Amino acid sequence: MATWSKTSLIVAAIFLLSSAGVAHGRSRRFVTSYDEPCKKMRLYFHDIIYDYSNSTSNSTSAAVTKPTALSTAVSKNGYFFGRMVVFNDPMTEGKALPPSLEETAVRAQGLYFYDKKDGPNAWLAFSIVFNSTAHQGTLNLMGADPNIETRDISIVGGTGDFFMSRGVATLRTDAFEGFKYFRLQMDIKLYECYV
Amino acid sequence: MATWSKTSLIVAAIFLLSSAGVAHGRSRRFVTSYDEPCKKMRLYFHDIIYDYSNSTSNSTSAAVTKPTALSTAVSKNGYFFGRMVVFNDPMTEGKALPPSLEETAVRAQGLYFYDKKDGPNAWLAFSIVFNSTAHQGTLNLMGADPNIETRDISIVGGTGDFFMSRGVATLRTDAFEGFKYFRLQMDIKLYECYV
Amino acid sequence: MATWSKTSLIVAAIFLLSSAGVAHGRSRRFVTSYDEPCKKMRLYFHDIIYDYSNSTSNSTSAAVTKPTALSTAVSKNGYFFGRMVVFNDPMTEGKALPPSLEETAVRAQGLYFYDKKDGPNAWLAFSIVFNSTAHQGTLNLMGADPNIETRDISIVGGTGDFFMSRGVATLRTDAFEGFKYFRLQMDIKLYECYV
Repeated sequence: MATWSKTSLIVAAIFLLSSAGVAHGRSRRFVTSYDEPCKKMRLYFHDIIYDYSNSTSNSTSAAVTKPTALSTAVSKNGYFFGRMVVFNDPMTEGKALPPSLEETAVRAQGLYFYDKKDGPNAWLAFSIVFNSTAHQGTLNLMGADPNIETRDISIVGGTGDFFMSRGVATLRTDAFEGFKYFRLQMDIKLYECYV
Repeated sequence: MATWSKTSLIVAAIFLLSSAGVAHGRSRRFVTSYDEPCKKMRLYFHDIIYDYSNSTSNSTSAAVTKPTALSTAVSKNGYFFGRMVVFNDPMTEGKALPPSLEETAVRAQGLYFYDKKDGPNAWLAFSIVFNSTAHQGTLNLMGADPNIETRDISIVGGTGDFFMSRGVATLRTDAFEGFKYFRLQMDIKLYECYV
Repeated sequence: MATWSKTSLIVAAIFLLSSAGVAHGRSRRFVTSYDEPCKKMRLYFHDIIYDYSNSTSNSTSAAVTKPTALSTAVSKNGYFFGRMVVFNDPMTEGKALPPSLEETAVRAQGLYFYDKKDGPNAWLAFSIVFNSTAHQGTLNLMGADPNIETRDISIVGGTGDFFMSRGVATLRTDAFEGFKYFRLQMDIKLYECYV
């Protein structure tokens, strides 16, 4: 076993070199590791829903569908089955809202919808768009959000600095103010990435 | 050629070991094979649409959009172009509906919409959420459903027991009762997975 | 460094062979390269929106949501925040519209929606469906479209001839006639593919 481990280590090292990036103006290595993330980031996702604040300058998301016939028949607590929301939400490294909601350097753009008759079970598909000094590019994510303590969704692709990245994002609800505002902590873990 | 094959076999074996999972509390190997699936499953997807049954306890999906101007102008047989449905459907190993539609251990959560003026051509994006003794985790899928005999969609990521998985799902309509109920057979084939 | 490069080249070659496809009736190699695309294609995406032409035979897409409360409050120039469009658009190798809009051999099927209060910022998820003599299969894509000069979205999976493919598509607006018609140039670059 010890022998195999050493051998595998060498092969892994060579494999990294074999993918050394010269295209895309990079002298970086493409790393594929399933044991440890090759890149980790914690970001906070702020969703400020128009429908309840009615403040056009502050809101960053809006419901795009009317309650369905099913939802009005069974909905409890306003979690309408099929309620779909389009968002363009600021993302931050800290928990505080950014100074400008509309000009934030990192944004989450996409949709979510509720898909349970009596609770905040949701489904998400979105891009994280980086336009900062630290990062330029996008990560693309999708997955189910059962609203348990922590839940994982897939990072299915990336562009720019995140070219061809894949991984998992772990979500945790960090603040919840009804349908007016909620904040998700997103722990981004890439297992395929340039480093 | 025989020499190359033998060499490649050895390298493949080492490559498997090089990804042996120690993180995630696993003593498993991450396998990347494009010749044979590293994991296969057959599951049945049951879609029980509210709009036509009007039974809140039995229904597991609902249309979230009204017919579009285009669809009412051209729709044949009720396949409204742009009709979008949110679902939270039970999935089973056998063809029978599960005893409880709302507490099934495996569920498909997501959306589909029709995108042809005169037929049941659709597009799907969803997660299969496993919460059973056999599996915990999710698979994330998307793709076009042209409603021919069999059609393939992509498995673009996974979490939990399906951490970082990718593959293809082959769909076949197994039962169809108009807009009230349909059942799809889904053959899940993973080509990147922990085994 | 020269030594490493040579070694890595050999390992890369073996790695290719180790994935030689025999399943799927193929005698092809699965190539994973992050330096150069293993496959490149340029395709034009034609979106002919019903709502403004009101021509059922010519239109290939339609808005499926009504303007949201937020969008009517703030929308400038008609770019309604949350406006969602389902499309089944012809794709062509040249810039000209195909002879038949509904029977084109390559189609883009999916959705986009606007997600900015005052401009044509959008988000896309769709499949490119190939049904031609050259290609049979699908590519599945998603990503943010900030409508800058060029922008990248992710190719997150594929089926058929594009089995398990991944890559990046670079989009450029090639023609724009308001909400009636627009044409995108899509440069498809696969970095994981059978060749």
